[in-house]
Amino acid sequence: MDITSDIHSQHISRQFNQELDELKTHLMAMGGLVEKQVQDAVAALLESDSDLGRRVVDNDRAVNDMQIKIDEECTQVLARRQPTASDLRLVLAVIRAASDLERIGDEASKIARNACELIDANNGTRGFVEVRLISEHVRRMVRDALTSFARLDTQLALQLVHEDEEVDNEYRSAMRSLMTFMMEDARAISPVLSLMWILRALERIGDHANNLAEYVVYLVKGLDIRHTDPDDLDEEELGPKG
Amino acid sequence: MDITSDIHSQHISRQFNQELDELKTHLMAMGGLVEKQVQDAVAALLESDSDLGRRVVDNDRAVNDMQIKIDEECTQVLARRQPTASDLRLVLAVIRAASDLERIGDEASKIARNACELIDANNGTRGFVEVRLISEHVRRMVRDALTSFARLDTQLALQLVHEDEEVDNEYRSAMRSLMTFMMEDARAISPVLSLMWILRALERIGDHANNLAEYVVYLVKGLDIRHTDPDDLDEEELGPKG
Repeated sequence: MDITSDIHSQHISRQFNQELDELKTHLMAMGGLVEKQVQDAVAALLESDSDLGRRVVDNDRAVNDMQIKIDEECTQVLARRQPTASDLRLVLAVIRAASDLERIGDEASKIARNACELIDANNGTRGFVEVRLISEHVRRMVRDALTSFARLDTQLALQLVHEDEEVDNEYRSAMRSLMTFMMEDARAISPVLSLMWILRALERIGDHANNLAEYVVYLVKGLDIRHTDPDDLDEEELGPKG
Repeated sequence: MDITSDIHSQHISRQFNQELDELKTHLMAMGGLVEKQVQDAVAALLESDSDLGRRVVDNDRAVNDMQIKIDEECTQVLARRQPTASDLRLVLAVIRAASDLERIGDEASKIARNACELIDANNGTRGFVEVRLISEHVRRMVRDALTSFARLDTQLALQLVHEDEEVDNEYRSAMRSLMTFMMEDARAISPVLSLMWILRALERIGDHANNLAEYVVYLVKGLDIRHTDPDDLDEEELGPKG
């Protein structure tokens, strides 16, 4: 290869790496917005702030726009750069991750809508302990999932897969408490149902954080661990690279 | 181009088309299985057949395996063939569609699990009218979504986007009826909650069928209509190609 074409190909490859970095940066920006949406949706409920709740519902549009933009960027990179191996896996993982972030945004918006209804219905603080516990847990999961994606940290990612099981247990226990409230007081049925939808949304956010963690493993190891029982995952084998 | 290389490139392109056709065939096979899972899950409830319900839960593994296989095939096609334009859109649409089909499978499995609980609890047929109505509607949507994908029929696809709104209305009305059952009889709370989870799962299946329809529009028109208000879609402009 002569020097000119060598410099040319180095230039192309530097541009390509920049494009891949940009994809990750945009995904992280979307992740930051989605994290904030979840936080605000829960705060709207716990602090009876229906203005904040309405803002969360409005902001969901911005989340959706970010997903469409990231999808377009990924499609362009695939078409123009025709990446293979780990670059291809990165682009596919970004597409999948953006889809999960968008769904987390949807769930945040559902939480905010139910929060507004509960505020209007003057429900008091019944069920708030349960919501606070689970929301702190899943918010930490979303944050850790994004960190593990940014750093390609498979150990942090695998930790999340186990945490999702804990959230499921907390969720089931919270649902039992709420069912007891309902049985004790028929007037509580409608507000408690709204709380149940909120808990369900939080539990699903945990599932999506779990998906994000699985993409990190796929990205680093080329291994698809979706649908694998977490207890069958060998953390030694899947530890961080190098 | 000399004759040998011309024949060679025709050969490559025939192989490539075969691979794309296979992707579609596998997606349709997965769609067929998922349709059956939804049908069986609802039948398990309406016919009090808990054996059938357990089979649906077991079969979810087969759905998951199909998604992983399709994803691998798509990744290989992207890496080896480096498709562009409409071929690239097809591969990306297949990846997305397989993900929605997998989630429909998850919802079918949730319906089956709740059906088994209801059968054990001897709930009777309360709420069956509502479940039957909505399940028939969303099953038709899943079938039409798959047909529109197989035929790249954007008109059928756009029809689905409107039908999803109808399902949402039926869902809200059914939830109100079920809430009334709960308020009238505190002992009904637990079984009626199971029915609510079933309705919610059916409503989500409608959402996923709607997503599938949106991918068809993306595929044919190169236009991303996710997050677009259905009433803003101009059916003339989006009608079938050619």
